[in-house]
Formats: sequence, structure tokens, C-alpha cells
Amino acid sequence: MVVVMEERASEDQIQRVVAQLVQMGFDVHRSTGSLRTVIGAVGGQTKGDPRLVEALDGVHEVMRITEPFKLASRTFKPEDTVITVRDLRIGGDEVIVMAGPCSAESEAQVMSTAAAVKRAGAKVLRGGAFKPRSSPYSFQGLGEQGLQMLRVAADAHHLALVSEVMDASQIAMMVPYVDILQVGARNMQNYTLLRELGRLRTPVLLKRGISATIEEWLLSAEYILAGGNMDVMLCERGIRTFESYTRNTLDISAIPVVKKLSHLPILVDPSHGTGRRDKVAPMARAAVAAGADGLLIEVHCDPDQAMSDGAQSMFPGQFDRLMAELRIIAPAIGRSICLEPVARRGWGSE
Amino acid sequence: MVVVMEERASEDQIQRVVAQLVQMGFDVHRSTGSLRTVIGAVGGQTKGDPRLVEALDGVHEVMRITEPFKLASRTFKPEDTVITVRDLRIGGDEVIVMAGPCSAESEAQVMSTAAAVKRAGAKVLRGGAFKPRSSPYSFQGLGEQGLQMLRVAADAHHLALVSEVMDASQIAMMVPYVDILQVGARNMQNYTLLRELGRLRTPVLLKRGISATIEEWLLSAEYILAGGNMDVMLCERGIRTFESYTRNTLDISAIPVVKKLSHLPILVDPSHGTGRRDKVAPMARAAVAAGADGLLIEVHCDPDQAMSDGAQSMFPGQFDRLMAELRIIAPAIGRSICLEPVARRGWGSE
Amino acid sequence: MVVVMEERASEDQIQRVVAQLVQMGFDVHRSTGSLRTVIGAVGGQTKGDPRLVEALDGVHEVMRITEPFKLASRTFKPEDTVITVRDLRIGGDEVIVMAGPCSAESEAQVMSTAAAVKRAGAKVLRGGAFKPRSSPYSFQGLGEQGLQMLRVAADAHHLALVSEVMDASQIAMMVPYVDILQVGARNMQNYTLLRELGRLRTPVLLKRGISATIEEWLLSAEYILAGGNMDVMLCERGIRTFESYTRNTLDISAIPVVKKLSHLPILVDPSHGTGRRDKVAPMARAAVAAGADGLLIEVHCDPDQAMSDGAQSMFPGQFDRLMAELRIIAPAIGRSICLEPVARRGWGSE
Amino acid sequence: MVVVMEERASEDQIQRVVAQLVQMGFDVHRSTGSLRTVIGAVGGQTKGDPRLVEALDGVHEVMRITEPFKLASRTFKPEDTVITVRDLRIGGDEVIVMAGPCSAESEAQVMSTAAAVKRAGAKVLRGGAFKPRSSPYSFQGLGEQGLQMLRVAADAHHLALVSEVMDASQIAMMVPYVDILQVGARNMQNYTLLRELGRLRTPVLLKRGISATIEEWLLSAEYILAGGNMDVMLCERGIRTFESYTRNTLDISAIPVVKKLSHLPILVDPSHGTGRRDKVAPMARAAVAAGADGLLIEVHCDPDQAMSDGAQSMFPGQFDRLMAELRIIAPAIGRSICLEPVARRGWGSE
Repeated sequence: MVVVMEERASEDQIQRVVAQLVQMGFDVHRSTGSLRTVIGAVGGQTKGDPRLVEALDGVHEVMRITEPFKLASRTFKPEDTVITVRDLRIGGDEVIVMAGPCSAESEAQVMSTAAAVKRAGAKVLRGGAFKPRSSPYSFQGLGEQGLQMLRVAADAHHLALVSEVMDASQIAMMVPYVDILQVGARNMQNYTLLRELGRLRTPVLLKRGISATIEEWLLSAEYILAGGNMDVMLCERGIRTFESYTRNTLDISAIPVVKKLSHLPILVDPSHGTGRRDKVAPMARAAVAAGADGLLIEVHCDPDQAMSDGAQSMFPGQFDRLMAELRIIAPAIGRSICLEPVARRGWGSE
Repeated sequence: MVVVMEERASEDQIQRVVAQLVQMGFDVHRSTGSLRTVIGAVGGQTKGDPRLVEALDGVHEVMRITEPFKLASRTFKPEDTVITVRDLRIGGDEVIVMAGPCSAESEAQVMSTAAAVKRAGAKVLRGGAFKPRSSPYSFQGLGEQGLQMLRVAADAHHLALVSEVMDASQIAMMVPYVDILQVGARNMQNYTLLRELGRLRTPVLLKRGISATIEEWLLSAEYILAGGNMDVMLCERGIRTFESYTRNTLDISAIPVVKKLSHLPILVDPSHGTGRRDKVAPMARAAVAAGADGLLIEVHCDPDQAMSDGAQSMFPGQFDRLMAELRIIAPAIGRSICLEPVARRGWGSE
Repeated sequence: MVVVMEERASEDQIQRVVAQLVQMGFDVHRSTGSLRTVIGAVGGQTKGDPRLVEALDGVHEVMRITEPFKLASRTFKPEDTVITVRDLRIGGDEVIVMAGPCSAESEAQVMSTAAAVKRAGAKVLRGGAFKPRSSPYSFQGLGEQGLQMLRVAADAHHLALVSEVMDASQIAMMVPYVDILQVGARNMQNYTLLRELGRLRTPVLLKRGISATIEEWLLSAEYILAGGNMDVMLCERGIRTFESYTRNTLDISAIPVVKKLSHLPILVDPSHGTGRRDKVAPMARAAVAAGADGLLIEVHCDPDQAMSDGAQSMFPGQFDRLMAELRIIAPAIGRSICLEPVARRGWGSE
Repeated sequence: MVVVMEERASEDQIQRVVAQLVQMGFDVHRSTGSLRTVIGAVGGQTKGDPRLVEALDGVHEVMRITEPFKLASRTFKPEDTVITVRDLRIGGDEVIVMAGPCSAESEAQVMSTAAAVKRAGAKVLRGGAFKPRSSPYSFQGLGEQGLQMLRVAADAHHLALVSEVMDASQIAMMVPYVDILQVGARNMQNYTLLRELGRLRTPVLLKRGISATIEEWLLSAEYILAGGNMDVMLCERGIRTFESYTRNTLDISAIPVVKKLSHLPILVDPSHGTGRRDKVAPMARAAVAAGADGLLIEVHCDPDQAMSDGAQSMFPGQFDRLMAELRIIAPAIGRSICLEPVARRGWGSE
């Protein structure tokens, strides 16, 4: 922590700050210039809040010098984390595409969509069984029945499965069905849920909250990592800004920022990030070009009949074209998007 | 819903939109001008998402014409809701001040703070036993032990008690201790929690999420109201903007906006809204002047030693001065801030 | 400037940073802890951009320790600036209300509105002759003819006059008519205009840009002050956020923030800040309660016929009631809103 | 315009709205449902402000049904605009890269940078002679001398030249030097400047304001188009959000949104959009993948010595690598990035 004193700070005020910092467990270095005194505080375990110092008389500004997250930081672990899910490696050379319907609605819908996305090159089936909806009057998902449909369809097409968990009480029921548990944007700071996920060994896909800073997002990942579950992948899905032509503003620059700050894989969800089908392909291409480790894309065999988020779901034909475009782009940054799984190990049915 | 077609929309495209709206259960009125066709859709239960229509070919824009919340709207209930908590009336003529420490830390701290805020005119003690903290390494609250301390101090000074619930699993334990259950900003869209609170008859104080629109906030209130719990009060606590001199930007204009859209009482939390002690008094005065039904203010007998949020807690002397200022301001809009409770009914000890 | 090195920064990288800082004219203090090296750089004239250091290898973060504005800062001038305009003192004990139509439209409209606002207690007539409009097809103002109408009406009712200047080329023509030159939000960073205003001795009212930080706003004030014109008053008028129920989010907390950082008077424009007539009174009351030195309010004798911004203009009766409410609120913070001018010196006609 | 009345609106209130709309020149269609009356207003020239209607009693909401810009809209001109600058076609199949130093600082610097960017495949030299700086104490550019240096270097390497104009008074002097006049983000709503540019036939590159909506941006383009200058290209350069790890948030989704709304070419400036050299390449790749018609990139032969914005300037070697990556990406969407100009027509020296 660096404490910058006001220009007219008195010696008493400076001493009061030094005393507070010492009490908080810091080693203190004082540097007095012609205009201002600057106090550096390093080492030790930080106890209490930097704002405790900020509120003292004579203090102009307090600046933190370490990131508040530890296990999630690249300083702690310089090499990229690669998460193994069945025979997939998320965070490696291959860009992993997860695709499927917003919600599971029927066996036929799930099965036909799974077939379509598999054919185009997706490696993971995505689909919701529990839907967080801002209105209590909207469709809330099929629950466990939806998970069963998704698992059957995933197995039939050799796809891994990711689905959203909304509450700690759902975890035990969901784990047998899914390969990756998704935490939605609204739950990014549901600490009870994050702590429980930290006790599992199932990989977690953690979406960024709609107005979360990247630091808060990495701190939420830290909650899971601190519990011992090291398989956390991040997913950018759009932040809230003043612009209203798009549902959210997909923050593509979060990709290189996270890559520098953290070793965790980062995916991008262009479907929720834009909310409009015709914006999904350009933003998916942009995400891969900027270095994303994967994509999460809504595809629906009949989006106009979808019970939620149909407007942002791609048609299978659009998804095919997108995958073809991505196969051209990925090599520009030394990545690939394979059509066939590298191997088939780990699938019970083979 | 009003659907505006593109200027060059074909008759086929228009028919497709009409068919979709009819299938969604709407009565449809078509109005074709020289430039554009506009389609009005009214009545019925809305099934599915307006964005389903938005994504059809030839559609320029889709505009909703009804608020998505019902029970929370002033259309549904024109008169102000007044919530009775012991002998207090929240939403009536009196501006209710809730004050106390950010977190319960010790019996002595809670008791002396309760005495101080009571003396200055607060009617409700606020204090946290469970603290949602963005870092897993920060102080997380004393739990049930903290609630016991707070209840003892509230009873000793004839104060009602409000405290934050972080998860549905904590409700049953908390209800015997508190008069009002607070939902924090991070949980504004924790729908599992909101639904459980809807089953109670304990009043709920629902904070606005840090980047929630007013519409989303009222929809979250709707989750509680739809369950049958009509005693919901709202609390503005600052939204996230680009400005960084303040921790958040306290949205004072939310007060008149909510007053127009809804019958629910609205309070303001200037402590979290600004994050700095010296900004709390000006913003508390502004909130009352703009028509807030109450305030939620952090006061700590020794803020510099507080284990969380000390920098934004007022000293008792500052709080006294603020209350004196508010007593001058409230009459400007026909409100009052009483020093003594109107009546003492409902206190077991009397 | 404080430079925080990465944890694994090499000695070479540290030396490179030190050399760069020395070249930029700083005195350098190095402090090496167990984890990180922190380099303090003080004194001298800062040449170049702190980001030059930020981009060097091994640098984790660069933090500025001085505000970039000088003449505008309270450090430079601890006492409040009071600006004398005719017989008014802006920034003193009296809260100064400036009111009038958005645009001058006709002699009758300007004269009747001036009479109404004078009667209610306004001290300055506001009104636009040049209107910055986002659409080239909107009404753009009457130009010099409008200024003449405004001056005649102001003189007839012993009001000072403030009007917006849009371009440096308009200054010479405008100065004989107005007492205060207003710089609109869109021109807050029109540096050519700011520099020209710095050469005048006419007071300037500088509105905050719609997404300007407080620091950028004070830097724009600095452009005027640096030219020698010390009579700059600031005016908050709403910032752009994600919330769409209000046109902008009026940042009431900017009042105490500016009061701490700067000695310049700060006014508030609740009309543009909210965009809706029924929100103007609550926000005007909030502004005075939070410590604003004055208000800028749109009043129109027939707002429904106004050629611009009628929806946010108050009716004279509403303005009367607001002024009565403000007279109750102002004393809460030791301020007053006088009905009659303290003195009549300076009016040519008396 | 569509006017939605409140549920309890009286017949008188409805008649008042109809009368107002008729007076504003609209054809009015009334549709009364069981809950609400909705009034459609089409045709005619819109006089006055929709908010005039919004403020009438009984009105719930007013929704505009036409974009406020005309000449800039794709409805007005369905085919893409291609702007010819010397032998270049901006908005055609080739992605045009404009590169060079932030500011012209010396003949040697400008000449060596021009050589480097030409070699890598840039077609336009960018460089500032007038620099809008938020602080009055920062380097403000070399003025006409800088333009001379840039023109000489551009001609020497067969590059077109783009440079920023800050004020209408600079236009006449600049036109002989530059091929494209750039309007910076801070001047996007400098209407005096925009109107003057509308009178020219020199192409204009119009940057998006830091918090401008896409609609406001297109309205600013409309000011230039309405004057008769149809050669306007847009340039996204980052918007202001709450995220602080990047200087701004580059809004990549603006590319497909603008492509749908308008026929004008859109470029992206990843240097100002991120403010950090190591983020420029990922964002430049993302922009091309999303469909941008061109890029504006800062390159400096010795960025650590640059007098402004050095931290975001690429080294020539980095720029070479980026251009190689872009050549792989562009074909994914049917575009190209040529190394050699298609033709050499129009260069006086050949």
C-alpha cells in the first residue's frame, strides 16, 4: 500500500498514519519530498481495509500495490492452466466451442441440436435446466428432467456437457449429469455457492457479472480456488454500458487483460453478450482473433419457437458457416479448431 | 408490444410477424403508413420473449408497452404502501433512520453504538452478522453470535433491528432475531433467496444491485410480492459508473422515479453509496430533500478500529449533527424526523 | 509518481525504469521489499506521460501522486472562490438561482418568463441564443437577436444574464450582452474555446461533460484559469449511465467531491440532469441540501409550446413552490436563498 | 412516434395528446384496448421534441419509430459507401490500415516511421499536428510545421495522409496538406466544426465520442452529410465504462451495429481504445475479424521517447507481425489486406 499525504499534512497526521499501518502489520517506509510525504507499506498479512487509512486526517490518497487475488494470479502460477474435461483440454492450443440451446425444452429439440453442433465441430453441449429469469413470470427451466435430456444427447454425440447451477442446494443433484458446472453472471458474487463449488472437483465455468470489474471476477474465481478446486475457467458475456443498440457491450479487451493477470482459461459468450443473432458471428470471430480459449454459443434448431432467448440463438446453418470462418482465423494466433476430437478416451460408450 | 417494420419490409415479412404475435396470444392491430407498417399487439398473457419478434426478418424495432412488473407497480396499487414494523410506520410521514455498525464485532461495540444512534433519533438498529465480501480472505462476520448481540442491544434501546441475509439457508435461523431482513446488492437477483422471502411475513429491505436498472430492481421486488409477502421496502445504495472519486454514484434521482412507478417505500444508504465518511452527510441530506422514506447509515463508536467498512462509518457526533440538519430539511416536503417514537406499542419489555 | 514493479522484475528492468524517471526530471527513491520493488518519483516538472513508464518491461503499475490540475485545486487556494457578478456573490452564503427558458423564442416569452422567475427569487436569467442540437434538423436558436431579447428582459427585471457560447468565434459578439458565458457539456473539452475564454475577464460557467470525470472537468477549468480568468464556476448537469428512466444520472455526490478538491463554486442543473419536469424539483432540493452554490433551472411560461426542451421546463407555479421549499432547506447547512437582492449596486438603470 | 397512455388515462387526457400530435404535423391512429390506449403518429415533418408529448398528463411512454438520422442511414442508401482517397478505396474489399506516430515530432521520426509502416503494408500515414490534451500543461503539437513533415514523409512513401483538425479555424490551412481530415472524439459534437466540414469535399474520419451512443455518432455524421460532403468514414475508439484495467472499452460490437444501420465505412482505433501497447494487436485482430473496413494504429520508431501517447504506440517489429496476422484473418470474411497498392494512379510523383 502506498499512502500519499496531503501537501499540508502535519507531522502529527503523518505519525498517526504510520501508527495505523504498523498496527495493520505492515513494514513502513517514509519518503518526504518538498511538497508531499509518501508512505510505503509492504509485507505482512494485510489486516483490515485500506480505506481505514484513507479516512485518516491528512491523507490524500491510498494506493494498493498488490492484486487482492492470489491463487488466480499469473504471479502465483506463471504457466497457463489447462483443464481436462473427458478427452478435451480447455486452455490448450485448440479453441473449444461449446454450443447448444439456451434451455432444454424437449428430447427432440435437445437431440437434434446436439447432432447439429457436433457435426459443425463443437466439443461441448451447452443447455440450461435451471434458468435465472429477471421476471418471476418467465419460463424457469425443466429442472432435473432437462438435465437428463441433455446428458442423453451429449452421450449420443460424444459431447461433454455444461449446464448452469443457480444455488448451492442444486449441486449434489447436478454433478452426476454434467461435466462442467456453469455459474451465471447474476451469481458471480453468490459466495455461498462459490464456496460449495470450491469443495468439488468438477470444473467450473464462471461468468463475469454484468458490471463486475475484472478484479472482482478474479476474486470470485479465488473463492473457488481457495476451496481447492483448481479447474476454473472464466467466461466473458458482456458488460452493462450506456449503449442500448446491443443488449450488453461484449468486452473483447477482457481477453488480453485476463491473459496477462491470470493463468486461468477464458471463454467468451457472444450470444448473451449481444442478445441478437446477427451480431453473434462477428463477435465470435472477434473473440477468437483476440485470443479466447473457447466460445459458448446458443444454437437452436428452431430459434423462433425457443422458450427463452430465441432471438440470440443461431440457426444450425449459420453456426456451420461461423465454424468454417473460425477455422481460418484461429491459425493466425497459433490456435486450431478441430473438427474431430483429438482422441476418444474417456467416453464410457466406446 | 409495438412492432415497427423496416421501411422496405415485404408483405410476407409483415404476415410472418402478425402470425408470430397471434401465436404468442396477442390481439393485433396493423397500421400501414406511407413509409412504414407499425403493428400493435395488446392483451392476452405474453408468452415468450419480445426478442422472438425482434429477430424476424423485416423487423426494425420492437417496443414493450407495459411494465413487466405488476404487483410492484403504482398502476396495480395507487396508494403508498406503509409497512408496520413494531411501532414504526415505514413509508408514512416520518422519515425513518436506520443506523448502526457495518458488522457486529463485540457486545460493547454494538451496545454503545445502539445507545448513540437511539439518542440521536434513529428508530432501527442496523448491523451485519453475515458479510458478503468480494475477497475470500476478508472478515466474514460473526454469524448467529452477532445476531444475538444486535438483538440484545436493539431491545435495550427500543430499536427495531435490520440485518442482512445472504442465503436461503440462513432464513429460519435469522427470523427470530430480526424485524427486517435485508437483501444485499449482490443478491438482488438471487432468485432462490427471493422466492423463499416471498413465503415469509417478515418485512424485507431489498437493496438495488450495483448495476441494476430500476426495472430489474422492481422485478426482483416482484419475486417477493408474488410469493405473498407484501412488506417490501427498496433501498438505493449507489450504482457503478465511470467516476472513480466516489466508490459508487448514489442515484438520488431513483427516489422520484421509484415514487412514480411503484407504491413501495424507498430508502437510501449513503454510506455504501459513497464509501467515504465525509460524503455521507451531504448525500443523506440530499436523499431526504428528494423524498426518501428513510435512511440506512453506518455509525461506529470507533470507526478507525472497525473490522469492515470503517472508512464510511460516521462518528456518533457527526451523526448527531446530521440528524439535526435532517430535522430542518424534512418539513420542506411535509415530512418529519421525530426524536421520540410516536408510540411504544409492541415492545415486549414495556 | 509511484512505480510498482512486478514480483519477478529483474535488476535490469528496475534500472531501466529508474533511468527513464531520471530522464523525465524526477527525484527517485527506491524501496525493495521481499516481494516487490517500489520506486517513488517526486519533484521536478513532469515531462511526458506516466504511461511511458507503465509500458516498460517489468512494471506492474504506475500511480500518480499529484492531481494534474493546479490553479483549480484547493491545495493551491484553500479558501472558497466567490465570484462577483453585478451585485451578486456566487459561492458565498446565498444560494444563487439562475432560471429562464431553454431558448429565447420571442420578446413576449422572454419578458414574461423573466418576470416570473424574478418574482420567485431568481437572481440570474438563463436563456439560450445558440443551441447545440444533436440533430442538424432541430431548431438551432435565434442567435444575436435572441441575446438582445434576453438582455432587455434581464435589465427590465434587474437580473444578471447567463447564455451559452458554442464557439470561440461567437465570443466578441456575445460579451456585450451577457454577464456570464456558459460552456455547454459538449464543449467541455473544446480547448480552442476554453483558451479564448481564459483571455477574458467575463465569468464563465463550465458544465461537466456527459461522461467527464471530475478530474477532467477540473482540468478544463484549468485551461481557463491558466489564461488568467479566475472567475470560473462549475455546473453539474448529469452523467451518462446505464439507467434509462432518466435522461442522465444527476451526480449529486459531485458537489461534496468538488468542494473538497477545488475552491471553485459549483452549481447544479437539474433540468438537463433529469430531462423531465416532474423530477426537477426533487433534484433541485437534493442539490441545495448537498451544498450546491446555485442552481440553473429551466422555466417557461408555456412549456408545451417551447421549441426545445419543453418537457423539462417547469411552469412558473411549480418554480414558485420549489423556491419556497428551498428557502426551508438552505438554512440546514447555513445558507440562504434571498427573495430580494442584497443590494442594487451595479445596475445601470438605477 | 407511438404514445402509450397510462392505464387510467382519461378521455380528456387522450384528446389532449391527439391534439398535440396533430399540431406537430402527424397523422394519428388511435387504438384502445381493454387496458391501455396506444396512439400511433406517423408521417409529416416532425416539429418539436417527442418529449413535449411525454410530459403531458396521462402519458406513460413515448416511443420514436424512425431513426433521427436520414442521409447516414442504410434505409436512405442501401449499398455500402466506398470512399476514394487517391488510389485507395475505403469501404471496399480491402481492409485499409492507417498507421504512424501519435504526434509529428521531428522530420527524422516522421520519415522513419512512414518508411516502416509502408513496408508492413499500411496505405495511409496518420500523425497529429494539433493535439487535444486534457491538461493545458501537456505538449500540444507542432502545428503547421508538423503537417509539412507529415506531407513530405507521406509523399516520399506513397502514402495518403490523415491528421486531426481541432477547430473550424484550422481547416483552410490544413486542406492543402492532408487527404483525410480527422475529427477527434472530444469534437464529435462540435457542431460549428462539423458544419464547416460539410462544405468541403475532403473526406472526413469521424471518431466516436467517448460516451456517445451510436445514434448520436450517426447524427454527427449527418451534420457533415447534410452539408453535401458525402465522404464520411466512422472510427470507433473506445467508450467509457466502469472497467479501469483498460483506458477505455473498445466497443467491437459497434462494427456490426453500424454496418446494419448505416452505409458508411467504419474503422477502428485500437491504440486509443486500449491505451496499452500489448493490447493493440489482439484488439486490431478482433476488429478485422468483426468486419471493420480499416484500422488506425499508432506506430513509433522509438515509443519510449514519444512526446505523447508513447505507451500505446507499437514498435515497428510488432506492427509487422500484426499485419501478417491480419492477412490470415481478413480472408475469413472475404476481405484482403494487400501489401502493394492495387494501383498507383493519383500520385503526382509517378
